[in-house]
Amino acid sequence: MSQPSQVPTTRRAAVDPKECSITGTLAAIGDRWSVLVLRELFYGVRRFNDIQHDLGISRSVLTDRLARLVEIGVARTEPYQEPGDRVRQQYRLTRKGVRLLPVLVGLMEWGDEFLSNGDPPVVLEERDSGEQVRLELRSTSGALVAPHQIVTRARRRRVD
Amino acid sequence: MSQPSQVPTTRRAAVDPKECSITGTLAAIGDRWSVLVLRELFYGVRRFNDIQHDLGISRSVLTDRLARLVEIGVARTEPYQEPGDRVRQQYRLTRKGVRLLPVLVGLMEWGDEFLSNGDPPVVLEERDSGEQVRLELRSTSGALVAPHQIVTRARRRRVD
Repeated sequence: MSQPSQVPTTRRAAVDPKECSITGTLAAIGDRWSVLVLRELFYGVRRFNDIQHDLGISRSVLTDRLARLVEIGVARTEPYQEPGDRVRQQYRLTRKGVRLLPVLVGLMEWGDEFLSNGDPPVVLEERDSGEQVRLELRSTSGALVAPHQIVTRARRRRVD
Repeated sequence: MSQPSQVPTTRRAAVDPKECSITGTLAAIGDRWSVLVLRELFYGVRRFNDIQHDLGISRSVLTDRLARLVEIGVARTEPYQEPGDRVRQQYRLTRKGVRLLPVLVGLMEWGDEFLSNGDPPVVLEERDSGEQVRLELRSTSGALVAPHQIVTRARRRRVD
């Protein structure tokens, strides 16, 4: 038997891709700009001009992405007023938006590990303890779970 | 003082966006198709035709995305041979690719919570215990950390 045929055979996806939560979340969030706008909101940058400055994004693209984030319920507008100026809107995350934090932290950790040459530009810390914060995969009983120990189980039958 | 002016002032991003690990990871991975190809590889789908079938993606787009994932080192090719057929290549995740699992799980969990009406299409379980697996934000001492307890600290000075 030749070496190539020793490899395990492929499996098929366990779930109808149309019902996949990953697909759904990606479709809801939109593109890379949306993720970077979410990053700004996580960092506490709330005002249109500040976000635009940070990202170097066009006003029309930023207007579109903010509207989308508000529409899907991950961001909300909040009025503010500088002295002598009219009331304007700034943007904040909703609870639904905060629940996207693990996605951003996951992207950050991968970039820290593989792109930053051991010198991460930003560190996440717990406010009170000052300890570093990181993402972990854990089972419901609280044990750390290695990726190769994870199996996927389809809750719905694949229909095609 | 009017109500709008009560809101906290905005903060500025603590890091030069050009050095941000989130930006870097998004740029490395590419677009939504790349994420879905990664999902297939996590599910153990390894062969070009199977991935193409699952995603309903054109051959040229899939060829491009697989080449990109191999180029950045998150996937690798592996020869296989069906009886009577020529040697072909299938695709597997590298360790660097497995390290993107938290990003996919984060996307999945958000979709499960907000898009699936309480009926997640796929459940992640620990192989031995059968317990459900989930992402958690924890400090280095192992304590669970709530999102509002997280502060970001810039390791590099913002240059602009």
